[in-house]
Amino acid sequence: MSAERQSAMPPVSRKSDPVIEAPAEVDLGVLKDVIGFRIRRIQNHLSRAFIDRLNREEIRPGVFSALALIAANPGMSQTTLAREIGFDKATVVALLDSLERLGWAERRRSPQDRRRHALYVTPLGETSLENLHEVAVVNEAKIHLALTKDERAQLFGLLDKLYAACFTGEAI
Amino acid sequence: MSAERQSAMPPVSRKSDPVIEAPAEVDLGVLKDVIGFRIRRIQNHLSRAFIDRLNREEIRPGVFSALALIAANPGMSQTTLAREIGFDKATVVALLDSLERLGWAERRRSPQDRRRHALYVTPLGETSLENLHEVAVVNEAKIHLALTKDERAQLFGLLDKLYAACFTGEAI
Repeated sequence: MSAERQSAMPPVSRKSDPVIEAPAEVDLGVLKDVIGFRIRRIQNHLSRAFIDRLNREEIRPGVFSALALIAANPGMSQTTLAREIGFDKATVVALLDSLERLGWAERRRSPQDRRRHALYVTPLGETSLENLHEVAVVNEAKIHLALTKDERAQLFGLLDKLYAACFTGEAI
Repeated sequence: MSAERQSAMPPVSRKSDPVIEAPAEVDLGVLKDVIGFRIRRIQNHLSRAFIDRLNREEIRPGVFSALALIAANPGMSQTTLAREIGFDKATVVALLDSLERLGWAERRRSPQDRRRHALYVTPLGETSLENLHEVAVVNEAKIHLALTKDERAQLFGLLDKLYAACFTGEAI
């Protein structure tokens, strides 16, 4: 089990026990019941590690998620993308500008509604997506292994419930 | 149940059903198994809503969490704060600069080790923390109500497991 976890880790050049105990002495204070805090700190950690692994400044946060969503839903609209990714429209516009600059995705006028853009991934984008997905899988290996398959399913169910609730009462 | 959820919502000025169905037609593609994606989109949503509610540009992301952690752990070190909040040291330094500029927290030389800083919240910081906590509670009301008490406990247990796993194999 320990060996299995080790295999996903970067080399560690020290002799002491590589497993750090959770710092039980730290009091979360008013954050104890704040869902956003517990989500945010994992997110901070994963994002930073992902960016470090990529080491490419032009790949801004959200590029991988956006590329993956467009690839799985060819012709999707900017509005749907914004909703699925949790960004506002201005951020999604900036994200799509980045994707077009990279040559990974393109906006085309929707044939149904000329005011809307339909989004598509380019062949170069497909290849980049494969690479980014590999990086994401390696990046998450440690936390992936921390949960059993059942626990992951449980977590995803709870997170999907939370995400759906974000849109309660909002106009589309 | 529906009425209970409604009470936590901002006023909605339209007649149609305010509950938007989860967009079942969107395929998550390779993101289906990516933990970071499901966390990130909730985080994106909550952060944006929190910033919109505050409407104060100088309050950068992480200020509330940092302030709350320092308040609950007077004299804590920058290193411990960085670990608890999931930021790297440079980001925590920038965060503490912001907190000092706001007059909400201060670094003092640790009496035990003059090379380390001990962190403290000022009286003004205590008051600001109360306000920020209220905003956070309102901001999360919708997603808070989406889960039962047991489900929240389950979620927190799973997230804490993930967070502890982030540090497996890392030097302190």
